[in-house]
Amino acid sequence: MKNIWELLEKKESRQKILIGKAASKLFNDKGYLQTTTKDIADSAKLSKGGLFHYFASKNDVLYFILKNYMDLALENFEHELTEVKDAPSKIRFIISRHINFYLANSSEGKTLFQDAHLLPTKYFKVIAEKETKYYKIVAGVLADFINGRVEKSELTILAFELLGMCNWIFSWYNPKGSITPGKLSEFIYDIFYEGVSGYKERRTVDNKT
Amino acid sequence: MKNIWELLEKKESRQKILIGKAASKLFNDKGYLQTTTKDIADSAKLSKGGLFHYFASKNDVLYFILKNYMDLALENFEHELTEVKDAPSKIRFIISRHINFYLANSSEGKTLFQDAHLLPTKYFKVIAEKETKYYKIVAGVLADFINGRVEKSELTILAFELLGMCNWIFSWYNPKGSITPGKLSEFIYDIFYEGVSGYKERRTVDNKT
Repeated sequence: MKNIWELLEKKESRQKILIGKAASKLFNDKGYLQTTTKDIADSAKLSKGGLFHYFASKNDVLYFILKNYMDLALENFEHELTEVKDAPSKIRFIISRHINFYLANSSEGKTLFQDAHLLPTKYFKVIAEKETKYYKIVAGVLADFINGRVEKSELTILAFELLGMCNWIFSWYNPKGSITPGKLSEFIYDIFYEGVSGYKERRTVDNKT
Repeated sequence: MKNIWELLEKKESRQKILIGKAASKLFNDKGYLQTTTKDIADSAKLSKGGLFHYFASKNDVLYFILKNYMDLALENFEHELTEVKDAPSKIRFIISRHINFYLANSSEGKTLFQDAHLLPTKYFKVIAEKETKYYKIVAGVLADFINGRVEKSELTILAFELLGMCNWIFSWYNPKGSITPGKLSEFIYDIFYEGVSGYKERRTVDNKT
């Protein structure tokens, strides 16, 4: 049975997540620069003292948002992939999971893309390491899919192009518009799958001639 | 013949461009937030008074950098495209031009991706309009290429996916590494071209069955 300290801890982290949600929306709308700790406290319905009970500074709030976002993105990612059978289905799963996760946490995701570089170096490094871990999982699946038929440097391009196609939606995509998230994911999968398959085939033909 | 006022103007704008270059490097390295007008003045080898002769504020410097970057990206873009013969070659040209332009002005480009949202709304709008103009040129070429074979909403996805593949390099690509800019451009072209061609063909087959 959970003891009272664990319960207290849980309540504390729930409150921190609520503050993070409120803050990331402010960072998106007003910009990190223009957002004050008072804005964050107001938006989270706390006094400034109440906010400082949870976070020592605005930087601290930013770090918490990004660390939490990456931890959640990584949570069970590898395990879930083991349950998807072949490489093309794994790629489809990655795209759809990546896009749905972003859309479910888009203010935190936008904060990652727009504000991560504003973190002090030592905190930025922790986030960058988590991003690298995520990248490596994606690159591993792509390596299986192309089955050694492209060079290592090309695998790097492939993995980042796939992430680029998924991540760039932060700059243009409105999930309330005519393109549903499901359609968006399928379209990205189609282009990427056909692109990589066509490229693989052409290389095989080129190598034979 | 140019009169002295035009010459003066030219010297003035050259100085502004130098300040913009210095400032965008600082924004990349230290973050827009942490960069002070004194840092910018020091890096551009000016007194603070000297800097304020050219720019009223740090926001002003940011706006100048982004406006200049987009104006240069748009300069002659449409005209250059008229000189490339078919749609696939135009797509290849767009990718290579986009990537080379970014690499030649990467601190300004990074500033665009990372800091544009920090501009006050009325200035941000000017930059966003220029980005829309650029997007429309790209979407026009893609519309010719796919020749009406996908829906309008799919054309939007296609255009932004292409821009995403090109722009996302800001987060990972090192032009001094083993992947040359030429190879990167060709690879993106191959994936995108094969992806869209394969998708078009499959749709044609699907529609027949």
